[in-house]
Order: sequence, then structure tokens, then C-alpha cells
Amino acid sequence: MAIYDTMFSQLDVTSSQLLVTDNVFKNEAFRKQLSDTVNSLLNLRVIPVFNENDAVSTRKAPYQDSSGIFWDNDSLAGILASELKADLLVMLSDVEGLYSGPPSDPKSKLIHTYIKKKHQGEITFGDKSRLGRGGMTAKVEAAVCAAEAGIPVVITSGYATDNIIKVLQGEHLGTLFHKDAHLWTQVREIGAREMAVASRESSRRLQALQTQERKKILLDIADALEANESLIMVENEADVAAAQEGGYEKSLISRLALKPGKVSSLAQSVRKIAEMEEPIARVLSRVEISDGLVLEKTSSPMGVLLVVFESRPDALVQIASLAIKSGNGLLLKGGKEAKLSNVTLHKVITSAIPDSVGEKLIGLVTSREEIPDLLKLDDVIDLVIPRGSNKLVSEIRSLTKIPVLGHADGVCHIYVDKLANMDMAKRIIHDAKIDYPAACNAMETLLVHKDVVQNGGLNELIMELQSEDVSLIGGPRASTFLNISEASSLHHEYSSMACTIEIVDDVYAAIEHIHQHGSAHTECIVTEDTEAAETFLNQVDSAAVFHNASTRFCDGARFGLGAEVGVSTSRIHARGPVGLEGLLTTRWLLRGHGQVVDGDKGVNYTHKILPL
Amino acid sequence: MAIYDTMFSQLDVTSSQLLVTDNVFKNEAFRKQLSDTVNSLLNLRVIPVFNENDAVSTRKAPYQDSSGIFWDNDSLAGILASELKADLLVMLSDVEGLYSGPPSDPKSKLIHTYIKKKHQGEITFGDKSRLGRGGMTAKVEAAVCAAEAGIPVVITSGYATDNIIKVLQGEHLGTLFHKDAHLWTQVREIGAREMAVASRESSRRLQALQTQERKKILLDIADALEANESLIMVENEADVAAAQEGGYEKSLISRLALKPGKVSSLAQSVRKIAEMEEPIARVLSRVEISDGLVLEKTSSPMGVLLVVFESRPDALVQIASLAIKSGNGLLLKGGKEAKLSNVTLHKVITSAIPDSVGEKLIGLVTSREEIPDLLKLDDVIDLVIPRGSNKLVSEIRSLTKIPVLGHADGVCHIYVDKLANMDMAKRIIHDAKIDYPAACNAMETLLVHKDVVQNGGLNELIMELQSEDVSLIGGPRASTFLNISEASSLHHEYSSMACTIEIVDDVYAAIEHIHQHGSAHTECIVTEDTEAAETFLNQVDSAAVFHNASTRFCDGARFGLGAEVGVSTSRIHARGPVGLEGLLTTRWLLRGHGQVVDGDKGVNYTHKILPL
Repeated sequence: MAIYDTMFSQLDVTSSQLLVTDNVFKNEAFRKQLSDTVNSLLNLRVIPVFNENDAVSTRKAPYQDSSGIFWDNDSLAGILASELKADLLVMLSDVEGLYSGPPSDPKSKLIHTYIKKKHQGEITFGDKSRLGRGGMTAKVEAAVCAAEAGIPVVITSGYATDNIIKVLQGEHLGTLFHKDAHLWTQVREIGAREMAVASRESSRRLQALQTQERKKILLDIADALEANESLIMVENEADVAAAQEGGYEKSLISRLALKPGKVSSLAQSVRKIAEMEEPIARVLSRVEISDGLVLEKTSSPMGVLLVVFESRPDALVQIASLAIKSGNGLLLKGGKEAKLSNVTLHKVITSAIPDSVGEKLIGLVTSREEIPDLLKLDDVIDLVIPRGSNKLVSEIRSLTKIPVLGHADGVCHIYVDKLANMDMAKRIIHDAKIDYPAACNAMETLLVHKDVVQNGGLNELIMELQSEDVSLIGGPRASTFLNISEASSLHHEYSSMACTIEIVDDVYAAIEHIHQHGSAHTECIVTEDTEAAETFLNQVDSAAVFHNASTRFCDGARFGLGAEVGVSTSRIHARGPVGLEGLLTTRWLLRGHGQVVDGDKGVNYTHKILPL
Repeated sequence: MAIYDTMFSQLDVTSSQLLVTDNVFKNEAFRKQLSDTVNSLLNLRVIPVFNENDAVSTRKAPYQDSSGIFWDNDSLAGILASELKADLLVMLSDVEGLYSGPPSDPKSKLIHTYIKKKHQGEITFGDKSRLGRGGMTAKVEAAVCAAEAGIPVVITSGYATDNIIKVLQGEHLGTLFHKDAHLWTQVREIGAREMAVASRESSRRLQALQTQERKKILLDIADALEANESLIMVENEADVAAAQEGGYEKSLISRLALKPGKVSSLAQSVRKIAEMEEPIARVLSRVEISDGLVLEKTSSPMGVLLVVFESRPDALVQIASLAIKSGNGLLLKGGKEAKLSNVTLHKVITSAIPDSVGEKLIGLVTSREEIPDLLKLDDVIDLVIPRGSNKLVSEIRSLTKIPVLGHADGVCHIYVDKLANMDMAKRIIHDAKIDYPAACNAMETLLVHKDVVQNGGLNELIMELQSEDVSLIGGPRASTFLNISEASSLHHEYSSMACTIEIVDDVYAAIEHIHQHGSAHTECIVTEDTEAAETFLNQVDSAAVFHNASTRFCDGARFGLGAEVGVSTSRIHARGPVGLEGLLTTRWLLRGHGQVVDGDKGVNYTHKILPL
């Protein structure tokens, strides 16, 4: 108690010890008195600290009272929480929470949400836990009692100093006990694999539908969105309010908020996707490989996609529509700040999916803890698409063997050649840096031919950038020449009003610089010299290479891909801005009349290309 | 010594203790006597066990003799190995071998081959190692002395019971000391990353060449192969002789041996690849996205390929030619039984690569230990292609995040529908199972419609298979009905004259069975019912789906892909038989006249498709 007192005093908080015994709780008057006292203390901003009044306790059996209830600090906490109608009871343990078996057993799994029906029989407690004060058995009993009385309970580790704060901020740490848990944790409690397998099965049924049937699902979703507009807006407003209260950044809140009219514009975009050309079962090539044996290469859904996105709830609608259009199953994980919006949008969308396909086609992952489990399922999930910060993409890449569609960074270069039109160079550089500095296709490094330095062109470019308050950081040559600070790394994505600048000898040196320090995203040469331009276009090993055009054009919509799934800097499957075709793979279909190989003796291979 | 005696006795081996002191080695007569004694003992099949004769040693400084040489069991072993002209000295330690730093430091790396020039200054020994008997410092000094006297030395861990056997079998365990190590480990000692980076740099230079220049490299390689035919055959014969001596399987030796005329047929196949259509920089689409702003999607080399193949040395030539044709860098790892053939072929091929590209374009990995290092380089290597057993593919997949082109298994199904032409069904099944049972596209499971069971068709099929001595294992229904043994798993690749057989209700049940138990490789329906056929073709989610044709047709050459890189069952990038296009990715090229995005205000997007 002295320690509590000292620690709280340091924070200018007053605390007060309250000592109670087990038997007094049977007394109605005492319970009333207790409640009043605690409320008075709280009104005075005094923190009550309870303990058992050992000195006066008449209890005989050490941890059990006459009615058979366990009696220790854990059960005391449970009883108090119920009596005082606490908003939340947090119980701190020496382990992360409740495990399915002894925490020391590697097979034991942390139970994120306790569901009595499900877990009661499953959990095996270690021997140590059964005995003594503070064991997990006692905690769980106390937690279940409190939860049934309507008090949410979290058991988490007391070793991490900020766990209480995290729990109060709504993070799902440790094990949660809640009387409605069995209702609202259905989604979460479906194992990750089960969820992915269900999605794949539904996707196969979706794929088997006719084009018109898939189209109808999308049109039904559009209608459902409009019909539920007010519900969606209410939930979104609640998310926004919570984010504002939580002190989130303004830019995040602006991405989070659905503006008036947004729901109907979302519905319109779904209808637009519905009207797009059928992407499935398109014949990409047709060859008669021998007499009457016709081989087709056709487009085919990938299978199951896992999309992890941040903040924007409208992304959910767009991604779900693209998945349905392309015949894929989908697992979605949105940002926690958009939780209510996402749950509502997910419900509205899946309720429009016919039973013949199954609403498990689109699974919503609500807890961050499930992501690592999902990322292990490289046999059931075919593609991961992270939509968000570079950090998110890198994290996901490091956690999975499933192919990841995306780019970790966009260090885009513009090279101003000696034969550049300087007015054009200024215009392009201005656009590439200033149009949207946080974009992945914004210019991060400006390379300038050494002759442009000498003829004064460099000064023009610098004035152009400085007139917009762009900070310049130099490469080794430029920093010396311009007397500006030198970049610690030439591979740097500022995503802000700053860029690296460096002087190079010629187009080959520029290419070499880009290969050495770039991220293989988008690069541009500004020149009137066709030969230099073609050298640059042919040799720069990046997803997109431009001549005399702003790097900002590297974008699915601007490229005319219809809908953008992401921008990929990997070399496999899809590269650069990726549209609907990035969600498709191919299948080979062969139609014959009983042909056999038989050591290739009887087969006359002709490989005649047939019209599509 | 008592323990040595007891242990050897259990193996009916006699051992004999020999006690020596440091100073006697100066005596020429003693050295002669020692050698005679040991040879006599070995002739009598007695194992000499040496130790220092502590009881009579006159040595003062505990571990150093008068001439300053360390004196302990390690240096004794080194001296004895030299004196007795041992074939090999194995020193057992409590760590895996010599590390670049203290073995407890995670940054320390095991040195596979000690090169005095390179490692002498680099290695830092832990403090513990400097002191006392048996430390690593003493071992290395003794090993270097013995190696310089011409005795190969291996330092490895004594904790793994079979390490000595493995070393004797030629496995490269622990650290090897050899007087010629600096010559023949050049290849191996180039760090994995260095090798991959060099290959990428060379590939960029290769890519920058004109079509005719790349073609000339291939033609030069073909000429070089023919010019070096006798050398290649001699080295290959040495590999074959060693494999025969080593008691390898006949099938392996037959794959290993280059038959007469093989080199010139290889040269011909390289010329054929040289003549193939240029795969690089093909324009796949061309769109004018707004006035004068033209976007092209072009084919582009992937970057660096890592190909791991088993036995067949001819695979090296084919893969190298395909890599050059497609502008890619290549790292190759062949089977150790083909080592001499591979080294020679690699040398012949790379010597035909011009300096302007660099012979490091194609790196040969000679030790298995380097594979894990290479598989970590997901930032430099773009695609791994394992060519060999399913086990090899699975192992590689488990070790890397780099995309792997290949298939771990081929559990191919044939479904005989109720409306099948039974003669056709028999012919196709016969071919699919018997043409080449070990092939990945051979039938492993036969599914039969329940009506075919009733009308006697099943019996015909079974007789067809049994007439060729194919063993039949039943699924749950078939095993009961036919009274044959039941399959423990319905996902089984026999790769031999055996197959699973099961009865299904209809085409949907067949599809369901394939989705549940297949490997998504190749499946076939035999039926005269077009509707059932189209249902099967549209809904089976495998790389290749056939109607009335043998699964054996699933092959790059039969599909007309020119050259086969592999068969892929992954859904990303390439699926089914993969030709040259599987070694390519795409780039987006945009040519403009100074266009900028400027918030899309001034841009009129037209997205007009232009002719190719």
C-alpha cells in the first residue's frame, strides 16, 4: 500500500486503501455503503485500492468461503467489479493471457476471446495454476463471473508497462471475457485456415456462375449500399468521432470520413465495375497442337486474395467489387480506426451475395492478431495485397511466403539530359515533385547532366524547386558543388517537399545511378535527343520508364487500366500499376477426341495458331 | 584408452596405444621407426591410438616445445599426419568448424574452406580459444601445418556421431584445409551475394545488346561446345566412372552419361534457341493515354534466375541458352555427381560470352552449402527454378521467399463420365498411366462415374490396367466395392505402375474430389457429353484441364512452347508448362512531349488503343 501511495503521489493522485472481508458482501447494506463510498472517492478523484482485510478475516478454508466460492484477490476483484458496475476489469498476470494449455507448452495458444461454450472444456491448466493465490484458474473463474454479470474483463500481462493503457485504447491484448462474446466474435473465432478455405470454396462457386449472375451480385451490392446509406454513415460518424477523441492525425481522419454523397458514388463505382468486360475465361491463345486437338490458354481467377488496407473504408467496397468481378475469394483486414464502418460495409456487401455462392466468399478479419496466422497459409491464400504505407508492405513481406503485390518504396528519378528542353524539364520536375509529394510516383531524386550544370540550367531547376520551398539534399558531387548538405543515403523516399539532387556525366551514368540507388518504380528522362531517350527507355530496369512525361502518370487510372489493384515493383506476375488482370491467372484447356501421346509415335504436332 | 579399447572391441577391431613425446620427433631414426610400426599395425588391421606420454615427457613450458611449436594433442595429430603421410586428418571440435569470429557471435560465419591468404588476418578467435589445450587457435595452427605438408585437414564437430563418416563420403562439413584450396575454391569463395549481383550487372549489359549480338553469343556457344566435344566427353566419362564406382543407381548414371553425338545435338539445340523469335522488348500493348502520350507495355528480362538441377549435365546447356536468349543472369547448381561435366560445360559456355557482357553472367555454384545463402537473396535473385524431384522442389520452397517456378507434386486425375466412349477411355487411361509412369503428368487417380460401375465399364478399365500389371488402390467406395486395399491418402503420387481408383456420383462429385485431393496439375474428363465436358473444363481449378485427351500432353514441347522451363502449379506469374515467356516480366514505357499531371486538370485522357 505504501508503494501504491508513493507511486500515485508522484503523479499527484491520491489513493485510498479499502479493506474488506468475504462475508460482508452478503450484507445488502454493506454493498450499498461500499458503492456509495467508492463513488464519493471517485468524485473526489481518489483512487480506491482494495485488499482483503486479513487481520480480521474469519475465513477458515484458505481460499474458499462457506458457499464454495474461491476467495482471493482475483475473485475479490471480480466481485467488486460487479458490485460497483465497473466499465472494465483488467486482471494482470505473469503471462500474456489465458492459453489453451500450460503457457510453457509451445502448442498452447493464447485465447483472444473467451467463449464459455467453446473453451470451457478445452482449456487445460498447468498444475501450478490450480494452486495458490493468483493462479489462472482463479482468474478465469472470477473473469467468467464478472463477465456474466455484464462487466467486460481483460486478462493480460502485468510485465509490459503500457498494457493497461493499450487495453483502454481498445487494443485487443490478452484474453477478453464478455457476456456477448459468443455472438460478436463468430467472425474472429473461425480459424484463419477455415476462413480461407471457406472463401476458396465460395470462390469456386462464384467462378462457376454465368457472367450475368456475377454482374447481378455487383448490382445488388450497389443497391444494398444505397439502401443502407444512413446506417453506413452513422457507423462511419462513430468511427470518426472516436478517432477525433483518440487524437488521431487530421489526415487520417479525413481519409476515414465518408463525405456526404460518398456512399452513392461508391455504389456507382460498383455498377461501373459490374459493367466492365468479363475478365474470366477469356481465351488468350488458341492453338491446334495436332489434328483435332485444340489447346486454349484462358484467364482464370487467382483463388483467394488477402487485402490489408489502412483507414479508408471506401477501399473495402472497391476491393470487394474487384474480387467478385474477377471471381476471387477475399479476406479483408481494415484499419482498426475504421472498424465500425468496415463491419457495416462488409455486412451490407455479403448480405447481397446469394446463398448459392455463400457469404463466406468475403471474410472480414477484425483483429490484428489474425494477420500472422493468415500470412502462413501459403497453400490456401494466393496473393496478398497490402494497401497502405511502405512500412505495412515491408512488414507483410517479411512475414509471408505468399506472393505480395505491392511496392515497399518509390524512389523515383528524373534525369535531365544535356539536350533537355529546360522549360519542359522545369514543368515536369515541378509536377513530379509538387503535384502530390506523398505519392509513391513523386520524384525523389533529380539527376542532372554535367553540361546542364555548366550552362546554367541547373540553377533554373533549383530556382524552380526552391520557389516552391522544396528542400534540396545533395549527392556527393552536387553537395560539394552547390554547398548544400549531403544525403546520408541516395536511396531515400522523402514523400514530402524535399528531394535528392545529383550531377552525373551522361545518360549511362544516370542509368547506373538509378540501378544502384533506385527502387525500380518509375524513372523519367527529359531530353530532345531521341537516341539518349531510347537508351534510357531500353536500359533502365524499372517497372515504368518515361520520356518527357511526369512520373506522376504512373497510375492505374491514368494508364487506363480501369481499376487499380496496386503498383508492383516485383518482377513476378505483375509490374507497375496493376489492374483487374493482376487478380487473374491462366489455365490451359485442351479439347480432343481421344488422342494419346504413346511415346509421341502417332502424334503429328502441327501447332497451328487458330483465331481467337 | 580403456574406453577406446572397449568400443573398438565391440566392433571386433583391435586398437593399440602409442605414447610419444615431443622431442623424439627430432630423431630421424625414431620417425622411420614410427612409420614402420604404424604401417605394420595397419597391415594387421590394428588401429593405432596416439597420445602424449605425459609420464616421461621432459617438456617444461606446458604447451610449447623448445622451438616454439605449440604442443598438444592437436599439434601432435598434425605432426603425425604429416609424418605418416595420412590421406586425411579429421580434427573434432565442440563447434561445427572454424568460424570467422567467436562461434557464439551471431555475426560469425562458418568458414567452409580455409584460405590462408584470405582468412589469416580476418579471423578473430575468442579469448577462450587462445588458451589451453584443444582450443581452436591450436587446431588451426596444426591444420595449416599439415595442409602445407600436403595433408588435407577437416575440422568438424565431434558431437554429431556420423560426421566422420560424412567427411569420408566427401561431404563438405566443417572447415577444410588444403594446400591447393586457394586455387580451386575461387568459385565457391565468391560470396553468394557478390555472385548474384555480378550476374545481375552482366544481365543488364546483355539486355542492352542488339538482337543480333545476343544471337551471336548463342551461336558462339554452339561452336565452342563442338570445338570442345572431346574435353567435355572425357570429363563426363570421369563423372560416370566415379558414379559407377560410388554405386549410384543405374537410372542416375544413364541420366548422367552424355551419349556419343550428344554434344553436337546440344550445339544444335543452342542454335535452334538462337534462331527463336526475339523475346525481349516485344510490345504487348500500345495505348495513347492522351494526346501524344503513348504508353507501351513491353516484355523485359526477369533479372537473375537461380536454377537448381539434378544429374543431367545437358540441362546446364539448355538452361544457359534460354537465360541468354531471354536476357537474364543465371546462377546454376548442378548435381554433385555431374561436377566435372558441369564445370567443363560452364567453362566452355562462359568463355564464349564476350567481355562486354562479362562471364559472370552465368555463375556456377559448386557446393551445396551455398544454396541456403543464395535462397536468402530475395532482393537480387528474381526466380528460382528447381528441376528435379518433388523433394527438391519442396525443400527449396521451404527455404526461400523468392518465387519458385515448379510443382511439388503431380497428382493427375482422369474422370470417366457415364457417357464416356469406353474404348477411348481405355486408350487414354492406358497412355496416361503407362506411357511414362514416373512423369509428373501421368495419371495417379482414376475417377469413375457410378453408372460406369453398374454397366460393366469399370471392369473393362480395370482389366486394361491389370493387363499391364498396374496395382490398384481404392478410395473408400472403390476399395469396398472391388475388395481391394484402401488408400491411406487420396492425395498420392505413385510415379510408378500403380494408381488410386474411386467411384463418384457425377461430374460435380468428380470436380469436388479433384479440388479436395488433387495438386492442381492436370486433370482430364472422358465423355461424349459436351455439357459435362464444359462443366469440367470450366470448373476444375487446375493448371491444365483436358477433355478426351491424355494427361501426358501437358508438356511444353507438346503444347508448342518451343522450350520448356518447367511446369508450374502455382497461380502466380506462370501456370502449367512454362516456356521462354516464363523468364520474362514486363515494363511500361511512356513517351511524351512534356506532359504533366497537375491534378489531372489539363489532361484529357483518351486511352486510345494503337496497333502493335
